Amino acid sequence: MLPGELEPITYVDGAVRILDQTRLPHDVVRRCLETLDDTAHAIRAMRVRGAPLIGVTAAYGMALAMRTDPSDANLGAAAETLLATRPTGVNLRRVIVGLRAMLASAAPADREIRAFEEADRLREEDISMNRAIGDHGLPILRRIANHKDGPVQVLTHCNAGILATAGYGTATAPMYRAFDEGLPLHVWVDETRPRNQGASLTAWELGQAGIPHTVIVDNAGGHLMQHGLVDVCIVGTDRTLVSGHVCNKIGTYLKALAAHDNGIPFYAAVPGLSIDWDATDPDAVPIEERDGREVAELAGVRLVPAGTPTANYGFDVTPARLVTGLITERGVCAASEAGLRGLYPEVAS
Amino acid sequence: MLPGELEPITYVDGAVRILDQTRLPHDVVRRCLETLDDTAHAIRAMRVRGAPLIGVTAAYGMALAMRTDPSDANLGAAAETLLATRPTGVNLRRVIVGLRAMLASAAPADREIRAFEEADRLREEDISMNRAIGDHGLPILRRIANHKDGPVQVLTHCNAGILATAGYGTATAPMYRAFDEGLPLHVWVDETRPRNQGASLTAWELGQAGIPHTVIVDNAGGHLMQHGLVDVCIVGTDRTLVSGHVCNKIGTYLKALAAHDNGIPFYAAVPGLSIDWDATDPDAVPIEERDGREVAELAGVRLVPAGTPTANYGFDVTPARLVTGLITERGVCAASEAGLRGLYPEVAS
Repeated sequence: MLPGELEPITYVDGAVRILDQTRLPHDVVRRCLETLDDTAHAIRAMRVRGAPLIGVTAAYGMALAMRTDPSDANLGAAAETLLATRPTGVNLRRVIVGLRAMLASAAPADREIRAFEEADRLREEDISMNRAIGDHGLPILRRIANHKDGPVQVLTHCNAGILATAGYGTATAPMYRAFDEGLPLHVWVDETRPRNQGASLTAWELGQAGIPHTVIVDNAGGHLMQHGLVDVCIVGTDRTLVSGHVCNKIGTYLKALAAHDNGIPFYAAVPGLSIDWDATDPDAVPIEERDGREVAELAGVRLVPAGTPTANYGFDVTPARLVTGLITERGVCAASEAGLRGLYPEVAS
Repeated sequence: MLPGELEPITYVDGAVRILDQTRLPHDVVRRCLETLDDTAHAIRAMRVRGAPLIGVTAAYGMALAMRTDPSDANLGAAAETLLATRPTGVNLRRVIVGLRAMLASAAPADREIRAFEEADRLREEDISMNRAIGDHGLPILRRIANHKDGPVQVLTHCNAGILATAGYGTATAPMYRAFDEGLPLHVWVDETRPRNQGASLTAWELGQAGIPHTVIVDNAGGHLMQHGLVDVCIVGTDRTLVSGHVCNKIGTYLKALAAHDNGIPFYAAVPGLSIDWDATDPDAVPIEERDGREVAELAGVRLVPAGTPTANYGFDVTPARLVTGLITERGVCAASEAGLRGLYPEVAS
């Protein structure tokens, strides 16, 4: 399930190495991150992406910054640099704010080792949480399998898989778990324009794992759902509001609408770290706007006429009313404040 | 409004010429259609596409077949060849069935000239009908303009423009008409995967006409609608069932869901020729499945890992309940049998 090639980030013998996801699916290229700037660039350029993996990578970035210069000034500057890379996900902010506070209270001479220890811990915690999400999502797929012939048909959007995390994936965790258990499974993979993370990343990792899947354009899911070809949707999240609204890759909302219209359950796989306990208003989530060239060009091919304006919103917010449930590492709950607080009673309200 | 470059098909001095839409937006290439096979290939390869233009092109294809061999046998064979090119649109079937009957009753020696005359008539009729759709759609845009500051924000999917017709377009007709009238206008253009007709064709023709527009990925429309950035959706249709269901390019249904969820009017521009008076069941519409390579590859670039399966459904059906109205050449009506029969009382029920 986690062959070496599928480890999106490693820290071995003092070296942080990432799988460069912009080179997938055709080339498996590992790159060494040596500095804070390497790390910030890797996040911005989406060599690593996915809210959980961004958080873990940023922690290693903080550690690399402390290796270079463990001063208070550099601690603050490193935190600001990393926070500015991607505005929408909530893991990044949580990791950096926590790590900054922890390191500020340590002596400068201890900061490098403390930061690497914490990054390692976050990496392992992420994998454990994802395995738990898999355990809690498994019964959802098993119930479907028990009531139909043929494979359980799952639709997913973007990549909330191994490659979006330190390992195992969030939305994919129930799929990997079900596949391990021998449940018949087939995954419809939205290609996920403009960056095609579904076509290039989800298809690749499902292929590595041997899970049957088919790539479709983002336009196709509604038609499939109208024709009984989807049993359940499972997506990831970059930020889940305490009110249950799910911020995820642009286009998620459209699939949730189609699922709702066709009576198909729609789940988000939600690691606790991605919950924004302070936010209830979906309109207040900062939606990253990326370079329009990601829409206008693909692999050097220009898709639009010269001079044509393009817009490139990275995420959308799926209203809680369209979400059947949230699959967290602590269990499945309703997409609501009551549901989330029931699973995380220790979080102050 | 109709500079020579924007005539998708011409018949001048005995030669049928098409604008090769697979070469847009970067190259403006005209090709001569000399035979039935040229014509069938041009339709299958989507050098010409869009239900109205397919119908007109097929009529010229029948005429070219009659030029080669006006026998009864060839008349039947030509009709079958053309009918097999694209299964979903209804204009094609209507044109071919009507033309075949007309020519069967004519002497073979007269068939070539009769067929070209009829093709010319259909071409001119299409342009007239589209202009009428523009006239009837204009008040919809004008009402919006009267109640807001800034441009009327229209979202459209695929290309139901000049390039989908003999001229003027269907969904674009109200936009061209409004622009001529000086209404402030901005069009969000869905790129429309997998063949990117929005990015390459709609953007190109709106650019030629000088209408402000922005290309977005198909995933983005829901987010725009949630944030008040779309005032109205107008799409085309390949087949409108008498019950008001609208079959159009894959992904249309998802935009209709988002429009409905956000209280945004959603119109289809419906030439009478695209109405299927015999069909009420949306599940009975044949949905063309095209080569999966259209999903897997783009301009020679492979988007998915080697060996990854892809599926490529060409169209979906938007339920009538999500459609605010149908803009026909005779006026705007409800998306219902009562609405359509009210405008076309002469059609036997």
